[in-house]
Amino acid sequence: MERHGVEEDPVFEIGIVVPKRDDKQEIDGHDCIEVLVEEFRKMGLIVERVIGLQNEFLKLAAPIKILGKAAAELQLKKQTHIGVDLQFEWDEIEAFIRQPDGSLFSWHERLLCYRHILYGTVNADKPIMLNFDSEKVYWELGESLLRKLESEGIVKEVFPLHDDTMRKQLLRSWALNWWDFTKQPIDEICSYYGMKIATYFTFLGMYTRWLLFPAAFGLILHLIDFGSLQLLVLPVFFVSLVMWAVLFFQFWKRKNSALLARWQVNQAPGAGREFKAFELEWSWYQCPSELMKKQGSDKITEKEVYQREEWFGRFMRYRNDFVVILSIICLQLPFELAYAHLYEVIRSDLLKFGLTVVYLLAIQYFTKIGGKMAVKLVKRETSKNVEYRADSLVYKVFGLYFMQSYVGLFYHALLHRNIMNLRQVLIQRLIFSEVLENLLENSIPYLKYSFKKYRAVRIKRKGEKGSFTGKFPRVEKEYLKPAYSASISQELEDGLFDDFLELALQFGMIMMFACAFPLAFTFATLNNITEIRTDALKLLVMLRRPIPRRDATIGAWLNIFQFLIVMSICSNCVLLVCLYDREGEWNISPGLAAILLMEHGLLLIKFLFSHIVPEEPAWVRANRMKNATHAQNMCSKELLRTISGGQKMFKELEKNE
Amino acid sequence: MERHGVEEDPVFEIGIVVPKRDDKQEIDGHDCIEVLVEEFRKMGLIVERVIGLQNEFLKLAAPIKILGKAAAELQLKKQTHIGVDLQFEWDEIEAFIRQPDGSLFSWHERLLCYRHILYGTVNADKPIMLNFDSEKVYWELGESLLRKLESEGIVKEVFPLHDDTMRKQLLRSWALNWWDFTKQPIDEICSYYGMKIATYFTFLGMYTRWLLFPAAFGLILHLIDFGSLQLLVLPVFFVSLVMWAVLFFQFWKRKNSALLARWQVNQAPGAGREFKAFELEWSWYQCPSELMKKQGSDKITEKEVYQREEWFGRFMRYRNDFVVILSIICLQLPFELAYAHLYEVIRSDLLKFGLTVVYLLAIQYFTKIGGKMAVKLVKRETSKNVEYRADSLVYKVFGLYFMQSYVGLFYHALLHRNIMNLRQVLIQRLIFSEVLENLLENSIPYLKYSFKKYRAVRIKRKGEKGSFTGKFPRVEKEYLKPAYSASISQELEDGLFDDFLELALQFGMIMMFACAFPLAFTFATLNNITEIRTDALKLLVMLRRPIPRRDATIGAWLNIFQFLIVMSICSNCVLLVCLYDREGEWNISPGLAAILLMEHGLLLIKFLFSHIVPEEPAWVRANRMKNATHAQNMCSKELLRTISGGQKMFKELEKNE
Repeated sequence: MERHGVEEDPVFEIGIVVPKRDDKQEIDGHDCIEVLVEEFRKMGLIVERVIGLQNEFLKLAAPIKILGKAAAELQLKKQTHIGVDLQFEWDEIEAFIRQPDGSLFSWHERLLCYRHILYGTVNADKPIMLNFDSEKVYWELGESLLRKLESEGIVKEVFPLHDDTMRKQLLRSWALNWWDFTKQPIDEICSYYGMKIATYFTFLGMYTRWLLFPAAFGLILHLIDFGSLQLLVLPVFFVSLVMWAVLFFQFWKRKNSALLARWQVNQAPGAGREFKAFELEWSWYQCPSELMKKQGSDKITEKEVYQREEWFGRFMRYRNDFVVILSIICLQLPFELAYAHLYEVIRSDLLKFGLTVVYLLAIQYFTKIGGKMAVKLVKRETSKNVEYRADSLVYKVFGLYFMQSYVGLFYHALLHRNIMNLRQVLIQRLIFSEVLENLLENSIPYLKYSFKKYRAVRIKRKGEKGSFTGKFPRVEKEYLKPAYSASISQELEDGLFDDFLELALQFGMIMMFACAFPLAFTFATLNNITEIRTDALKLLVMLRRPIPRRDATIGAWLNIFQFLIVMSICSNCVLLVCLYDREGEWNISPGLAAILLMEHGLLLIKFLFSHIVPEEPAWVRANRMKNATHAQNMCSKELLRTISGGQKMFKELEKNE
Repeated sequence: MERHGVEEDPVFEIGIVVPKRDDKQEIDGHDCIEVLVEEFRKMGLIVERVIGLQNEFLKLAAPIKILGKAAAELQLKKQTHIGVDLQFEWDEIEAFIRQPDGSLFSWHERLLCYRHILYGTVNADKPIMLNFDSEKVYWELGESLLRKLESEGIVKEVFPLHDDTMRKQLLRSWALNWWDFTKQPIDEICSYYGMKIATYFTFLGMYTRWLLFPAAFGLILHLIDFGSLQLLVLPVFFVSLVMWAVLFFQFWKRKNSALLARWQVNQAPGAGREFKAFELEWSWYQCPSELMKKQGSDKITEKEVYQREEWFGRFMRYRNDFVVILSIICLQLPFELAYAHLYEVIRSDLLKFGLTVVYLLAIQYFTKIGGKMAVKLVKRETSKNVEYRADSLVYKVFGLYFMQSYVGLFYHALLHRNIMNLRQVLIQRLIFSEVLENLLENSIPYLKYSFKKYRAVRIKRKGEKGSFTGKFPRVEKEYLKPAYSASISQELEDGLFDDFLELALQFGMIMMFACAFPLAFTFATLNNITEIRTDALKLLVMLRRPIPRRDATIGAWLNIFQFLIVMSICSNCVLLVCLYDREGEWNISPGLAAILLMEHGLLLIKFLFSHIVPEEPAWVRANRMKNATHAQNMCSKELLRTISGGQKMFKELEKNE
């Protein structure tokens, strides 16, 4: 099972792109690519040079021992057989739990080690003058060669490579395995793509499985006429739907914590995410405490420093959220309402179509601007933790999409009480947008890739005067594939943002307007079943191998789903009123309506405020973390020896039996 | 600062009550009290025999070394200087953090050690025949002497003793220190009474301090006439009140986690309580896993066993909750409504008074029955953890009190829209019940105690033919004092139940009817300021020293307070409707009302369901706990040596400087 790094058949996992030089001139001195390759080989890496049509590629593989050395240098923490995370040591390898596929390091850990090795090619000897074609690069003492070459533009890109054997295996067992409707080989996905992507697919699978119940219920509602009971059936559907949604997310949380246990992530529930986030932003937290040591460690002042930082960070974040909400309400809302109103007023179908086209183009543009604004705001926030910032971005951008997707629908439902129109728009959105999006999502990367490939071949042909028949190396094909990136911002999120956004918008659509169109659940189920396979196909065939993320939860999206459930309770009640009161005979005194509005606002405040003030002060958390890390580091070596000793004995006993 | 267990002036912390024998007959063989005292002395305890009027008392003190030995035998986990809990070892004493008052063990830990020592007086040699007056007790091999004597009825009681120096100090700095309105010496309370009681007083103090804001606002509303703005002022008051309440509880959570850090409790927030609870019920969880080992450790089956146990336990609990809710609605609700209705209908004041008396007597009786039922139900639940069961009891019994306290008020408010009557009832309840309860709470224990003392002296006088002038030993006085126990059940809760219940009912009363009577906050503030001192006085003077509890949160009460906030949002909206719509002109269509009702029900379901399904499966938690404990135990000794070595070096360095 130990595939990675076995000498006979190295698995190349990293590709480095450098420009191709047409003819090899003999220049005196050191050629910088040669030196780079030499350095990598010195580090123990296996390097293969591939000359492509436009660029030259270095494919790198590392024997397990080299990775292990890097992991020890990085002081990587890994779970041991007694369940505690300890710093990795090569000598005590038996103490650490292996991945479900039998390898020692996960893909995320391997990438960290590779990065450490690659950027660790430091000039230790003396400054060297390197040549690149006619340019000269001066490699100074203590400088990382790869970083230097990157900054000079000689190394164009460093990117993870697909592992062809595993990719083909996954293609067979996962992407093309259409008969296993929602079943997926999660462990293999996790070991190939990392935990975050595996979590997404687990969620998608479970969500689709659970969707079968409301889909069946919705279908029954649509097909059977309940006669006089019809009035009663809809509320029953609604109530059972809410219970279904709440239970689903509770069971998802359980499943997620089971996943964490399975993938050997030490994480307490609830506190877990923050806990881990904290570990990563440790460097940030340490600064006030180090500052304090110089001032003579006064506990109370240290606490104050923490508290000031904590509240300042929160203040910045809420100010940003306020800006986002305000700009959405003031800028986006009128625009969306204007479109919905025009759509309702215009009679001509042609004009309607034209309006929609203009609208769609406009929102593309608006969304881009909004996304950029959100990214800028998030960057100003003090937190340096990646997942925390990603969450912050998700909340902000979702506000934008929420308005975009639902305001028009609410307009049709509430102001015009036009259920038929609403249903029509819902069907349009569900079928067109979902199907189209699925198609676009898959075809655009493919078209991009094909175009790039075509251009590369054409340029080559021109150079060789139309007689190109040579091989197109696989690594160059991969280089031409687009990366798995978010439409909104490449820096803070990857393609999972778009995938989760699609799911959340779908969930909001089917839940919030459930009473108007129960059949939506059936559509959604069908869509999700295809979504599983097309997303898999996209990842395996269309895109470069994504950079794995360490997080193993669905993060901010969970809160968004929960919010959508609460919203759906309110919106469905409004829909029921519209449905039952077609003549508009029901009435309510304005005073009563005002008080009801106030009540709903207050309930919202109650549950928002509970999130605004964190339950644990930053200094308490910092203390706890410091303690835990301290203890782990202190007893690391003794413990490791004990555990690995025990494991060895255990194995020998097994052999003897 | 190291007061406990210093040889010169032993602090007696445990009292044992044995019957007094009138005249010392010389019987051959072993007198059992003599043997008991001898055994205790052999264990290293300091024993003082005091002969009282009715009983004989053994006062016990333990030198710190003896306690330390017991703690090591108990494998007590204590926090070390690096913040991790490790098993106590006497040799590595420097590694452990001391209490804020400088002593090594907290009161709770000391009591655990005492218990271990006292019940550890096992017959290791040979069976002995013991004499007690004319009775004979056969002390068998391997039997605990104290337990034997308890079962024979010779040892009447073992109870913790007050420490007179500390008690007097606390009396001065806390109970009689009226000028520090809400300030209290929390650390001293914690070291004398344990964490749970200190948490209660911290909460009470913070709650009273925060109450000052709505109290001032309420007073302003009451005193100033806002003229035409009057209609606007009440909603503003209401909205700011809700925000106040939500913020208060968020800040309380922060304060509580700061307290945990201060008192050296290792606890993650959120998961914390459950986490610790889990640790205690470890023995319970271990049984399925041990069972599994015999069957050949199959991971999947073990998981199934856990899951079955988890769901069965949950099912039992929800069934019980359902029974409680059903019986409250079917039995208590009609009774309360009947009383409220009669009170509204009857014109004669005399009859009203009579009715109230009958009602008060009846509910005393009902509450007792309800409490007993709840205790029985809780006992049937599978969880064996004390704090968890206490919480379960709190939820069940609070339902009872909730109906009792508020149904009548709602009746006045809603059905009769009689705000004046409501206000009158509120004032009655607030003044009478709070003041009376405070008085009763303090006077009843005192009266009980006085009566017992009087009887003891009278019996003594009779015996000595009216010439009693002897001393009444302090330890006997303490023995006659009542224990700090809950009115509802002695087993699962102590007196904190009554104190928290009082606070919760008060909070509900002032919040839920805030718009009808804003002045209530002022009353509540005054009441709470006195409550702090009278509760302190009660604990210090009237009662025996309570048995400390390990928990340091307010437990189930936090959820109850949160629930009351949500209830208060709804009830105040209803009150506002009643207030603004005196003529009953506002109306609402029945269909609309039904849908609104459904909406509120669903919102409730959403937030209840989230609590019903636990976020983490039991087997994951069990795994995690097993791992953590395993690691702690494995590296315990090495770590301890390192830490204590470091501490010693640190101290020497300090000395040299």
